[in-house]
Amino acid sequence: MKTDKWLKLHRTVRFGDTDAAGVMHFHQLLRWSHEAWEESLQSYGLDAAAVFPGTRNGQSMDIALPIVHCSAEFMAPLHVGDDLSITLDPTRLDPGSFEVRSRFTCQERAIATGCLRHVAIHTLTRRRTSLPEAIDRWLEASNVGKLREL
Amino acid sequence: MKTDKWLKLHRTVRFGDTDAAGVMHFHQLLRWSHEAWEESLQSYGLDAAAVFPGTRNGQSMDIALPIVHCSAEFMAPLHVGDDLSITLDPTRLDPGSFEVRSRFTCQERAIATGCLRHVAIHTLTRRRTSLPEAIDRWLEASNVGKLREL
Amino acid sequence: MKTDKWLKLHRTVRFGDTDAAGVMHFHQLLRWSHEAWEESLQSYGLDAAAVFPGTRNGQSMDIALPIVHCSAEFMAPLHVGDDLSITLDPTRLDPGSFEVRSRFTCQERAIATGCLRHVAIHTLTRRRTSLPEAIDRWLEASNVGKLREL
Amino acid sequence: MKTDKWLKLHRTVRFGDTDAAGVMHFHQLLRWSHEAWEESLQSYGLDAAAVFPGTRNGQSMDIALPIVHCSAEFMAPLHVGDDLSITLDPTRLDPGSFEVRSRFTCQERAIATGCLRHVAIHTLTRRRTSLPEAIDRWLEASNVGKLREL
Repeated sequence: MKTDKWLKLHRTVRFGDTDAAGVMHFHQLLRWSHEAWEESLQSYGLDAAAVFPGTRNGQSMDIALPIVHCSAEFMAPLHVGDDLSITLDPTRLDPGSFEVRSRFTCQERAIATGCLRHVAIHTLTRRRTSLPEAIDRWLEASNVGKLREL
Repeated sequence: MKTDKWLKLHRTVRFGDTDAAGVMHFHQLLRWSHEAWEESLQSYGLDAAAVFPGTRNGQSMDIALPIVHCSAEFMAPLHVGDDLSITLDPTRLDPGSFEVRSRFTCQERAIATGCLRHVAIHTLTRRRTSLPEAIDRWLEASNVGKLREL
Repeated sequence: MKTDKWLKLHRTVRFGDTDAAGVMHFHQLLRWSHEAWEESLQSYGLDAAAVFPGTRNGQSMDIALPIVHCSAEFMAPLHVGDDLSITLDPTRLDPGSFEVRSRFTCQERAIATGCLRHVAIHTLTRRRTSLPEAIDRWLEASNVGKLREL
Repeated sequence: MKTDKWLKLHRTVRFGDTDAAGVMHFHQLLRWSHEAWEESLQSYGLDAAAVFPGTRNGQSMDIALPIVHCSAEFMAPLHVGDDLSITLDPTRLDPGSFEVRSRFTCQERAIATGCLRHVAIHTLTRRRTSLPEAIDRWLEASNVGKLREL
């Protein structure tokens, strides 16, 4: 079975993503991982205002989702103009945290992987809390997809 | 008549594009202007290897297109999740230079404008030269579009 | 006479600032212009909390200073490892706005200039207002320096 | 005993480093880790031309040092204006690779850690090779410092 469509994204490497070695500068990958996650939420149907502070008509948020860990592995260089497929694999770690693994391929070839781990905290106290309901729904739906693939 | 499709692009404001004032951080706009130009060339059908150094199968380039001027005007703030329309208006300035004006709107409202001015130079000597043929074709086609609109 | 010390800054071009053409990617310059302005305020003795939202012990700000215009001219390429001198030239435009021109040189050679124009607005209404007192003081002191130079 | 001076660096969080949550946007940290490494080489006395492609008077490089792994842990939020101390801890992993761990503190408080792992490759073949002599010297000197600390 196929990955749910909101977990499969695309991106083209742009000139400003490269460095003087002629290839993608490493830290762009984690920016792409985060943007792919944002695009996934949007594509699944979540309103940015349910997840991010600072949206146009957004209320002030009670819960924030800071990143406590990120990592990436690089298997092959990327060049300007390369078309990437990005596959997201989200996992709830406990009621108050989750991680999103991302797999980048270019013409079927493994290029890089990324991982972002978020925890939910109360905005004011910065104490840990449960994930927002919107994120829980997205995690649930993404997991159903994984089960279908078995 | 309509703007040629390769001159009309879209983009969503992402969380990492904002700053602690809660809105888009100004210099992202010029990054978007450049990426919109790259996407326009791609959408028109130009191979990145005809324009940019460092492409996957690219030859070393004889001609580079450094930016000699950039500017932007900001009319209204942008928030995470905002969907932008970007309209490009390219102009050949002389046989060796061109500029690309960009107009950003959100829900029909004018948000910002950008301008990037490029000159063609020989990579080795850094002396000015004529525009690459691929860029000339894209400028020509974009101008035909403008004439049709009169 | 010499430029006041808080208007003269330094910076080294880093690898991530370059692109596949082997030189500084243009939009970094406007980031540097903004960071040089922040460093100038700090070096003059202003607390970031008097100017920027989101400081560690900061109150919520009544006044924001969004950028309404930015521009840059590029005269020569920059390479990784280049040491830059940055000279700032701030001007009050009217009681509610100011601009900061920046001049970048490398080994006495003119490399680029930048310009950032800010207006003061009430955070809640986004209506224009007078500049914060801290910015006014910095503009005043910087201008005294200019007069001394005559 | 003290950490060698070229392994102890400083940085101030700038406005453009923050996002709409009001704190440092996560992926800036890996940019800072890389820039701190570059500054360390410079402070130790290495010419950028011995390590990076694209320097002003640089030869084309035979050896490149791409990053194959990066990671970061975030313990506390950072705000605009925060002054950071960055301590680097480099380790040779084998004759052709090394990693640089970085520890970020603000007013003695642990804020974050980063890790960048590089391998040496021949620029043309992209086959693995030994570290450039300049990097070897910097690793050696940094390790002597560590031994002195025992």
